Amino acid sequence: MDLKEELQSRRAFFDTKLMDYLQKDYPRKLYDAARHLPQAGGKRLRPILAMLACEALEGKPERVVPFSVALELTHNFTLVHDDVMDKARLRRNTPTVHVEYGEPLALLAGDLLFAKSFEVIYDVSDAEIVHELCLKLSRHTQEICEGQQLDMEFEQRNHVSEDEYLDMIEKKTARLFDLAAYGGALIGGRSKQKAEALATYGRYLGLAFQIWDDYLDLSANEENLGKDIGNDIRNGKKTLIVIHAFENASRQDHKKLIEILGDKNATTTDIQTVVRLFKKIGSLSYAQQVAHRFCEQAKEQLHVLSDSDPKNILLALADYSTSRKK
Amino acid sequence: MDLKEELQSRRAFFDTKLMDYLQKDYPRKLYDAARHLPQAGGKRLRPILAMLACEALEGKPERVVPFSVALELTHNFTLVHDDVMDKARLRRNTPTVHVEYGEPLALLAGDLLFAKSFEVIYDVSDAEIVHELCLKLSRHTQEICEGQQLDMEFEQRNHVSEDEYLDMIEKKTARLFDLAAYGGALIGGRSKQKAEALATYGRYLGLAFQIWDDYLDLSANEENLGKDIGNDIRNGKKTLIVIHAFENASRQDHKKLIEILGDKNATTTDIQTVVRLFKKIGSLSYAQQVAHRFCEQAKEQLHVLSDSDPKNILLALADYSTSRKK
Repeated sequence: MDLKEELQSRRAFFDTKLMDYLQKDYPRKLYDAARHLPQAGGKRLRPILAMLACEALEGKPERVVPFSVALELTHNFTLVHDDVMDKARLRRNTPTVHVEYGEPLALLAGDLLFAKSFEVIYDVSDAEIVHELCLKLSRHTQEICEGQQLDMEFEQRNHVSEDEYLDMIEKKTARLFDLAAYGGALIGGRSKQKAEALATYGRYLGLAFQIWDDYLDLSANEENLGKDIGNDIRNGKKTLIVIHAFENASRQDHKKLIEILGDKNATTTDIQTVVRLFKKIGSLSYAQQVAHRFCEQAKEQLHVLSDSDPKNILLALADYSTSRKK
Repeated sequence: MDLKEELQSRRAFFDTKLMDYLQKDYPRKLYDAARHLPQAGGKRLRPILAMLACEALEGKPERVVPFSVALELTHNFTLVHDDVMDKARLRRNTPTVHVEYGEPLALLAGDLLFAKSFEVIYDVSDAEIVHELCLKLSRHTQEICEGQQLDMEFEQRNHVSEDEYLDMIEKKTARLFDLAAYGGALIGGRSKQKAEALATYGRYLGLAFQIWDDYLDLSANEENLGKDIGNDIRNGKKTLIVIHAFENASRQDHKKLIEILGDKNATTTDIQTVVRLFKKIGSLSYAQQVAHRFCEQAKEQLHVLSDSDPKNILLALADYSTSRKK
């Protein structure tokens, strides 16, 4: 099984469906702004996760399409608004929505994408499932807002504990992965018990994925990742790496870290200094370890599934989430 | 029947219920920001409309509470984001959320209020009604976004037709009034036919209400209205009054209007000049007439209802919407 191919074929299938839902055109500028990020591509991990969970319970992936689209729209809505809040200039190798269309349109485009998510779920044919998934989408999105707020607050604080960090990424990232796997499984197999196990898989996958993302932010180059490099450091983002470094740095290194982290004007040399310190303290490899642990915990959840291609892809997806280069 | 008293008693009842839904407290700042505008009061017209529609069909107003709260949360979400887009400083006699908490928190607080709206509707006990109202809330909110975008685009244009303006306020304002009356009626009486008539009542009421609001913006003083006066003129907002004035002004007056409308630095004297021109051209009384016409069309819809106190209140509410001083 070639994971890349498996993901690619589902992504291509999903992308045409996603664009079907984004055809409206008046007022033109609003819909152009709303399409901007979804059109720029992306890994589509949440929709693919929902499809795989559905398939692993012998459901047809077509049945999960509206739910997958809703997940991706909600995810894109949070990214568009986060980029406004973080003043990010680049996302998926493309200027962010507010850079291209201005902040008012970025706000409105995000609102529109989120509002649309709920309408789209209604194309899932089973009313009882729609009922449950809409409620969960509402609740999980509230938690995503809480996570984003915590993330911003942590930037202003020097000390953040590992538990606080994990609670934050659980809300900001893992909840939507959890919902993707849960909804996909529910639509595919109508078994709450298996859907719960897959939700837990999604949750651990989300945690692993986010920690790996923070790790990549520091180890990849700009071209590979498609976003500004060093931004997390300039914003003083409290990633697991930063938290570990603060807790384990010598007094002198600690002082240096405090100096550069959160300095909006940090130079490329400053960023390199910080990355060198992270390596010296062992924080990069610590983050890798934690990500791998979550990856293993994710895979354990899949025991409830009988052997199948989709199960194998889900196992490989977990491994990929903590080995990918971008 | 004393309309003021009838509205006041429902508002007081509603306010306690609304605050029950806004008790969460972590992260504290996010929830403080989210509570800021709902707590600042307001007319609560949408929730009261839903209650009255429910009562007019002999439903108990308690049954409509969760739906009413959802409407008010969604309405507040749109106001919080609109205020960011319009850079408004004052709302309900209180600094706007972004002035008090900064733009990132205002974005996030708005997102949270909207996400919560869907969860809250689920407390309406009838699953079929929840299903329909969630779908409508999603669709109508998308139209609200479209309306807000048109409103902003019109600010940049010199010519906007009356039809374009009416389409814009239909989306931006009337849709939520329509939904309020529809949902209230559906919850109260489970008759789609009567709910449709009440939706049309709500729609006309919303149109009348919005036109009257634009009229008040120019005729009331700051203290009465609780928002910045003259802002609409400085932003170049295309209200019905402006559209009428442009179409009926002499060449000389037209030139003067073009000069001042949309000028961010317009002085109080400039604003007074514009208001004097509006009066001279007859645009203020034209807007009053149109609002009154919509008010009459709203009232006609109520023929489907048997005589009752709630029906009389709905009739009086329509008259109030185009006679109020603030």
